Amino acid sequence: MAAPKKRGMQTIVFDNPPCLTSWASIVGPKEGEGPWGNSFDVRLNDNLLGEKTWEKAESKLLQDTVSLALSKRGFEIDDVEVFLAGDLLNQLASANFAARTLNIPFLGLYGACSTMAESLIVGAMILDGGFCERVIAATSSHHYSAERQYRFPVEQGVQRSLTAQWTVTGSGAVVLEKGVLGPKIKSATIGKIVDRGQDDANNMGAAMAPVASDTIKMHHLDLNLQPDYYDLVITGDLGSVGAALVRQLFNRDGLVPKPNYSDCGILIFDEKQDVHAGGSGCGCSAVMLCGPLLAKMQRGELNKLLFVATGALMSPTTTFQGETIPCIAHAVAIENQ
Amino acid sequence: MAAPKKRGMQTIVFDNPPCLTSWASIVGPKEGEGPWGNSFDVRLNDNLLGEKTWEKAESKLLQDTVSLALSKRGFEIDDVEVFLAGDLLNQLASANFAARTLNIPFLGLYGACSTMAESLIVGAMILDGGFCERVIAATSSHHYSAERQYRFPVEQGVQRSLTAQWTVTGSGAVVLEKGVLGPKIKSATIGKIVDRGQDDANNMGAAMAPVASDTIKMHHLDLNLQPDYYDLVITGDLGSVGAALVRQLFNRDGLVPKPNYSDCGILIFDEKQDVHAGGSGCGCSAVMLCGPLLAKMQRGELNKLLFVATGALMSPTTTFQGETIPCIAHAVAIENQ
Repeated sequence: MAAPKKRGMQTIVFDNPPCLTSWASIVGPKEGEGPWGNSFDVRLNDNLLGEKTWEKAESKLLQDTVSLALSKRGFEIDDVEVFLAGDLLNQLASANFAARTLNIPFLGLYGACSTMAESLIVGAMILDGGFCERVIAATSSHHYSAERQYRFPVEQGVQRSLTAQWTVTGSGAVVLEKGVLGPKIKSATIGKIVDRGQDDANNMGAAMAPVASDTIKMHHLDLNLQPDYYDLVITGDLGSVGAALVRQLFNRDGLVPKPNYSDCGILIFDEKQDVHAGGSGCGCSAVMLCGPLLAKMQRGELNKLLFVATGALMSPTTTFQGETIPCIAHAVAIENQ
Repeated sequence: MAAPKKRGMQTIVFDNPPCLTSWASIVGPKEGEGPWGNSFDVRLNDNLLGEKTWEKAESKLLQDTVSLALSKRGFEIDDVEVFLAGDLLNQLASANFAARTLNIPFLGLYGACSTMAESLIVGAMILDGGFCERVIAATSSHHYSAERQYRFPVEQGVQRSLTAQWTVTGSGAVVLEKGVLGPKIKSATIGKIVDRGQDDANNMGAAMAPVASDTIKMHHLDLNLQPDYYDLVITGDLGSVGAALVRQLFNRDGLVPKPNYSDCGILIFDEKQDVHAGGSGCGCSAVMLCGPLLAKMQRGELNKLLFVATGALMSPTTTFQGETIPCIAHAVAIENQ
């Protein structure tokens, strides 16, 4: 049993750190053409996966990614005990319909683009708490289903602002187990909401930068870690605008030095791919984690990773009603042994 | 630490059952006029709480209910370590904006109308797992924000079908703690999704009855309990249509006898209140739990309660795309000592 965290702390330390024993990533065509294309398990040729709508395609994408992560470990779906997932669609449509097919106990989670970290945290608590021996944590996003839900009909061809990010079509899934080999979740920081008054839904990087910095700062403070403790601190989807801002905050606070920091939203696309400020969406950090990052950990090129998925928690309704954007960031510390 | 549940089981047994040490319920005017009106902490006079929109009102309702549950225990918000909440609005708008004000670590959950049970289950695992000492679990729904999001503009005055239910305006919140007095969460059953092909979003009771029966059956099987073990098995919001169906399933399977079963959606309104098949929404089961049910437990009139919140996981988009309704039910066993 873990020692309860002290009042006022946000970070949980796992006594028997759960292991990431298998993972999978599937990405859309545009993501497959990006600089890390070869690092994903599957690169799709089209955005529909044989389905009639983008929403159904996204749910199938999530389901296929879960199945792939399980099969890489030689598991059937019944070999895991709980499915932890969420996505960006209203009422978590992708996760719910994937859960219907997978047919195991299901907990739906929502943290916008922070959902991959949230599902890993809840999964790790379920394992270290002794309630289960194996769970699967997953999330997905789809450029076209997100675009039409959050912004404009895709066919309208609205010009995107330069601060806007491109929602990643992709899904990542991780099998978590206790007591076996693989990178381990040593600790996790549960985010608080930070809202600095940003109200432009086309500039989510600027909205999320303060919360990313806040969670990273609390993580280092709670555990009394040096700023360069992690080989890499990676945020989910701040993009170029948000990452530049978060670096300013790091400098101000004496946090993570420049070579130890990056952002999945910057890495996933090449500048030539015309995505403006970078990638975003639950799938962005999920596929970067379940693609290149965990592969690097497995090869020993990366040994201490702080995965900080960031979420902008606005909805079109709250934006129409003049609200600013509440943001959250959860951090998961993944280490080799 | 709990013994891990056996593979194939859905039920978790808590070794050190977390206690419900404080709770609160706030309801709208219509709910306040219902048969249990006097059992809620606050009955609102209007549906707006001084806000300009129903969505902002719902978020304030959730926030006020959390504050009330804390103050009844003499706590400030900083005395609890994690806020677990969700609601029916797209992107969990009510929970996110309440979490912004509450300003403690936050995990967003979505299980449609099953969210109160989901938040209690995740909260109980966090406590029994040893990660925290105090958490708060809460949810809300609002008739008018739900109506316009899921169905029609309220002003349009569309005639409601007789199988339709009335989304409850209300919020419930529970403070969970370890090692102190109060009703305890002894065990919990995490639901699987069941979808029997029902596609009428105006008859959610019929859609949810099979999953309610399934979760209740698994709970009794996993723990080897007699059908009359619980003083009361209560479902969240099956309403009159769904409750009649679930009774048929109980009879078929030799489950819960008639006097030991009821449904929050039937109880909350009087037949004269013209709500057709009964109440629904996250708030329905939440306020019945945090109002009359826990009060009865405190007075010793009820000692063993199985709280089974039920959720219909469709979205308007999936319904438009011809999908049927995937449903979930999570069960929480609450017992006096």
